[in-house]
Amino acid sequence: MAVTGDVPATQDEQDDGWVIVEDAVPEPERVRHRETVFTIGNGAQCVRGSFEEGLAGEDPATFLHGVWDDEPVGMSELANLPRWIGVDVWVDGERVSLRRGVVEDYHRRLDLRTGLLTRTARWRANDEAPAVTLAFERFVDASRAGGSAVRVSVTADADARVRLRAPLDSHVENTGRVHFDHVGQTSDEWAASLRVRTRATTIEVAQAAVVTLQGAGSKAWGSDADGAPAVEHECELTAGTTAVLTKYVATIASVSSADPVGEAFGLARELADAGWAAVLAGSSAVWADRWAASDIVVDGDPEAQIALRYNLFQLQIAAPRFTDRASIGAKTLSGFGYRHHVFWDTESFMLPLFVHTEPEVARNMLAYRWHGLAGARAKAAANGYRGAQYPWESAGEGVEVTPTWVPDLNDRTKLVRIWTGDIEIHITADIAFGVLQYWGATGDDDFMRDMGAEMVLDGARFWASAATLEKDGRYHFREVIGPDEYHDHVDDNAYTNYFARWHLRAAEDVWRWLSDKHPQRAAELGEALAIDDEARASWKTVAAGMFLPLDEKTGLVEQFEGYFALPDADIELLRSPERTESMQQIDGIEGCARTQVLKQPDVMMLQYLLSDEFTSAQLRANYAYYDPRTDHEFGSSLGPSISAVMACRAGDSERGYDHFLRAARADLLDVRHNASDGIHGASAGGMWQAAVYGFAGLRLTADGFSTHPQLPASWKSLTFTFTHRGERHTVTVTNEPEPTERTPAGPRGEDSNRA
Amino acid sequence: MAVTGDVPATQDEQDDGWVIVEDAVPEPERVRHRETVFTIGNGAQCVRGSFEEGLAGEDPATFLHGVWDDEPVGMSELANLPRWIGVDVWVDGERVSLRRGVVEDYHRRLDLRTGLLTRTARWRANDEAPAVTLAFERFVDASRAGGSAVRVSVTADADARVRLRAPLDSHVENTGRVHFDHVGQTSDEWAASLRVRTRATTIEVAQAAVVTLQGAGSKAWGSDADGAPAVEHECELTAGTTAVLTKYVATIASVSSADPVGEAFGLARELADAGWAAVLAGSSAVWADRWAASDIVVDGDPEAQIALRYNLFQLQIAAPRFTDRASIGAKTLSGFGYRHHVFWDTESFMLPLFVHTEPEVARNMLAYRWHGLAGARAKAAANGYRGAQYPWESAGEGVEVTPTWVPDLNDRTKLVRIWTGDIEIHITADIAFGVLQYWGATGDDDFMRDMGAEMVLDGARFWASAATLEKDGRYHFREVIGPDEYHDHVDDNAYTNYFARWHLRAAEDVWRWLSDKHPQRAAELGEALAIDDEARASWKTVAAGMFLPLDEKTGLVEQFEGYFALPDADIELLRSPERTESMQQIDGIEGCARTQVLKQPDVMMLQYLLSDEFTSAQLRANYAYYDPRTDHEFGSSLGPSISAVMACRAGDSERGYDHFLRAARADLLDVRHNASDGIHGASAGGMWQAAVYGFAGLRLTADGFSTHPQLPASWKSLTFTFTHRGERHTVTVTNEPEPTERTPAGPRGEDSNRA
Repeated sequence: MAVTGDVPATQDEQDDGWVIVEDAVPEPERVRHRETVFTIGNGAQCVRGSFEEGLAGEDPATFLHGVWDDEPVGMSELANLPRWIGVDVWVDGERVSLRRGVVEDYHRRLDLRTGLLTRTARWRANDEAPAVTLAFERFVDASRAGGSAVRVSVTADADARVRLRAPLDSHVENTGRVHFDHVGQTSDEWAASLRVRTRATTIEVAQAAVVTLQGAGSKAWGSDADGAPAVEHECELTAGTTAVLTKYVATIASVSSADPVGEAFGLARELADAGWAAVLAGSSAVWADRWAASDIVVDGDPEAQIALRYNLFQLQIAAPRFTDRASIGAKTLSGFGYRHHVFWDTESFMLPLFVHTEPEVARNMLAYRWHGLAGARAKAAANGYRGAQYPWESAGEGVEVTPTWVPDLNDRTKLVRIWTGDIEIHITADIAFGVLQYWGATGDDDFMRDMGAEMVLDGARFWASAATLEKDGRYHFREVIGPDEYHDHVDDNAYTNYFARWHLRAAEDVWRWLSDKHPQRAAELGEALAIDDEARASWKTVAAGMFLPLDEKTGLVEQFEGYFALPDADIELLRSPERTESMQQIDGIEGCARTQVLKQPDVMMLQYLLSDEFTSAQLRANYAYYDPRTDHEFGSSLGPSISAVMACRAGDSERGYDHFLRAARADLLDVRHNASDGIHGASAGGMWQAAVYGFAGLRLTADGFSTHPQLPASWKSLTFTFTHRGERHTVTVTNEPEPTERTPAGPRGEDSNRA
Repeated sequence: MAVTGDVPATQDEQDDGWVIVEDAVPEPERVRHRETVFTIGNGAQCVRGSFEEGLAGEDPATFLHGVWDDEPVGMSELANLPRWIGVDVWVDGERVSLRRGVVEDYHRRLDLRTGLLTRTARWRANDEAPAVTLAFERFVDASRAGGSAVRVSVTADADARVRLRAPLDSHVENTGRVHFDHVGQTSDEWAASLRVRTRATTIEVAQAAVVTLQGAGSKAWGSDADGAPAVEHECELTAGTTAVLTKYVATIASVSSADPVGEAFGLARELADAGWAAVLAGSSAVWADRWAASDIVVDGDPEAQIALRYNLFQLQIAAPRFTDRASIGAKTLSGFGYRHHVFWDTESFMLPLFVHTEPEVARNMLAYRWHGLAGARAKAAANGYRGAQYPWESAGEGVEVTPTWVPDLNDRTKLVRIWTGDIEIHITADIAFGVLQYWGATGDDDFMRDMGAEMVLDGARFWASAATLEKDGRYHFREVIGPDEYHDHVDDNAYTNYFARWHLRAAEDVWRWLSDKHPQRAAELGEALAIDDEARASWKTVAAGMFLPLDEKTGLVEQFEGYFALPDADIELLRSPERTESMQQIDGIEGCARTQVLKQPDVMMLQYLLSDEFTSAQLRANYAYYDPRTDHEFGSSLGPSISAVMACRAGDSERGYDHFLRAARADLLDVRHNASDGIHGASAGGMWQAAVYGFAGLRLTADGFSTHPQLPASWKSLTFTFTHRGERHTVTVTNEPEPTERTPAGPRGEDSNRA
């Protein structure tokens, strides 16, 4: 698939839907977007797609799970690690830059099968100079958390003196903020190392690079610029020969090692001893296993094919594979957006694909929340509630890190109050929902006993204490924010209230299971969390008395109290193809709040997740009402994939496909103009759900599954692999015979592979 | 004077009160304080006293007037320029650091006569290694805005291989914030250059360094680390020989040059061609002239002697000598504190010494305010007033840059509202007062016609429109902050109200003078500022009706309405020598606001500046009341010097001397524990006023002066030089015969020099 310029995506015929291609040096205004697109990683660290030799306007970055540092507005962010990808190239004394001189035959390819990123070009300093052929390759070792490697080949058309410098560069920043102090460095003719330390959190990060050169007899030396130690090579190439510099890099942080420097040197040597081919083969083998568990094949739609794999890839590289003390931030590990904070996006949008393709990764993500219980309890206590109220934004420790005030971009003397950390309370239920989803799909009782139950139970305590009994005899939540953030400080948000009831009921089920199967743990938690008959009775009372908006006649669920009384949204403007800005940009947040326009599905999200609680007619009625009032194009990036699922459930898979394409293009084609800040993780995770739960119509039961396909017209078939209750299934679905919603039974697709 | 550790300051017997001495490598917790203390500069740029070879924990910085960049909280700050002082030294492959190895005979000396900073030490890598003697020297060229030079000498005890690296390093920051993008660089065996550009304001700064080495035949090369180009030298020293590296540096910004790079190269070459001795001699000659115009000699008190010269020096290097588009920030150009913003500190505390020693510099400072009229008018308009309301904090353009909200250091989720930019309104009169002070002392009618009158007149328009006529028939200012910031949102602050009247009356005088002497300019301003009979009548009405607190019986002026009704300050605690924190730290700002405790003189400041408006008895009564209620020790650093003057006027010069010593020790001995953020500019300027207006009792008349000395007991004599109405006077005063306040006539001191 080409992502160059504004050319519509097309499939590279030879790549069979596995390769992201760029065929021209990105224009200056595209540089940061393409850095995001070409992000690679291994579930411990990710590195943006910056050029090895550098390019003006880049925001190069590597992020490693756990290396948080303080930040004044956003409280905490992952510190951008020293830049390890760099290889500077001089040809006959001229510094190579693809912004200067003459560039021909430029190609960049990201092979999703292996995570290998390659870039080739022919370059001349000027029209008269002889050309060199350059090849840059790099990958992050999928089998070793700290490992990565870069290889640069220079082939000369004519005799040429080539200098190659391979630094570890500590002069990095997080969009203007410096996080690291320089601690120490070494450099000689074969290796360089660097030690830095975060300023507030005093996390030490060590990097080591072992550098080799193949080619005509060269001289090598260490260069010791402060903060940027390097190994340098210089050689005299004769026409037609090639110099190949290989840089084996290890990055180790003190969060996972007592001896980061020693471990980094050890790992870099290990990689170098094994050699490029062996390390890449080992890493590729891990990728092969991963794809075997998760691949999705779309026959008939190259764009959908590459976009699905690409978005899976981006989540797979960001997911916490080597620790259970981290999870995936809203913008993954691919940019600076939202400062790597973890939102509900993670459990509600990204978790399902891991639950069903790599449950061990899903377990890490949920264990991260369990480690954050102290922060959730502190938040509940600070708000005068019992139990565990999860933070809206969570970083290393799991305390609330939502900014309270941020600068007003229109008036630098003003600040804007961010309320989500105060009153967007539904996330506590979203996490519990993720826990039960994982448990239901995996049957991982050990996890449930040790971690899951505690999260669900302590969350229920929060809900029971936060709900307010009013004169009408019902329980209410006032002044909250639901998924649709165009409306804040609303009363009785349907999503929140229904989920509170769901959570309270689920807690009772979990408690019964725990008491039955693990009475000692139940006793322990009962004691610690003061769960007694009275407490459980209150859960039941609150759940039974919860105010739940539903118009029995129309089937409509009012998004919050008073929503239907608001002036209608400007549907003509909303649905106009001419619109190029979000409704928030057009009307302001206050303007949006005064009408029915939605930033993203809210009642739809509720009916998607708690579909058992609504009838099919209610679903269709609400879809018909809310879908046209939603800013799918420029509202929240969380919306389109969920809207795609719900369109399918409402029987309109072609409209679902429109929504799906919007999600597919969020990052690859940057249709929201903010992909430079990082991958839209929720959108990426939602695409998997749109394909599997929407177009394939997968439904899971305790010990089986069924599919109810509604493929877009252009799709000949859809094949996907998932794991349920320990069994892996690869299923192919087609549109033949015509699916109907009234056909509940049996798998409609063909289960071709029970692994 | 030694400033090492906590040893009380003592005069170096050989230096005659001109040299600041440090005799041990600063302990880690002293490093940033000493960087401030050893700041040098030339009135265009200042550089902190960081080590050429670096020292852990430093905040190295160079600031150049005019190179502002945006900053999210404080709006604007001077961008820390690339670090040009660096010279890295290796001896037999060991990097020299005075934190490692064995250090002996360490001495640092700042010669205030010439601005030359030198540092010497003997160093060995370890007990067994032979020693080298190191000498570091640097100065900023007083005769060329962009010029500076560094010299490093290495003398070997035994044969040694010495490597010297002289970089221009763009990897700098403003306490964690990066302001510069790298634009370009060059390096070869004789010179290096660097181009950087501020990110928001796109100001380009070019640096060039020409580097020479004297000594045993060495090899030289350019090193080209990205962002830190350097010239390197390596030589083999034989025992007893010396290598001397000299680095001639030019720093040119696009705010003053159309070709920064060309100009930087030109200037660096010019300096190198002239050579160290000639450049230093030229610079020293400028210093000699400056000291001839401004020196103060105290006989009998070495600490007071060195502190007076030191504080003069620090203001002289920060004052705008090469531009009239800059002024002196609250922390001068010596640190990051207050982000280089210009407050009332400048006109009320620092300006007087320049008015009377270097009036051309005072003119630049006031012209900066004239260039800021647009910003002052914008502020008045935004607040619904007419005329020009000067910003409380001013940066490059003169618009209001006071932060509105700053992070709460005690709770990272909270912000603290800063009100000074909204309601500390007296600064407009303070600036007008400075204008009239300058005009009165210099008779610079051209300045008054072109700039001064406009500032005074448009300020009067502000006052007339901002005063509120109330039922009592008087004009009031409600909800303001006076000089004492422990009490905000007060009504009828005496300082503000008296100064408003003063300003309105002064405007009428200025208008009459302008109409009489420069009718065309008067017509022009009258038209532009809508100054007609009606406007002038309103000035008169408001001035005549201004509410002015004064108890005729006691002579007491109530600082603001209701002040005397507040519970008294805890005077016992305030005056206890055991107290080690400010009253704000002890009671909180709200706690202070509820009592009579003062952060700094307020009524005293009023009576100091507008002394003609009060009787001597009133002055004594208010001094007796307010002085004991002021947190002299840990309140505002602006207070002690003014308290010193007023103690003298109240006949208590010994108490005045206590106050004076507090000011003297603010930076040299860091008694306020925040000198690391930069020089306390107002305290420094106030010391000159304490000496000249306090201890010497200078009083100026239209064409003459008198002195009324009240020297501290230990002072045998005080000699000072000042310029008044174009004539330079050097006056020596003594305590003989006993001064009395009732002796108004004739100079008591000896005028030894009419230049």
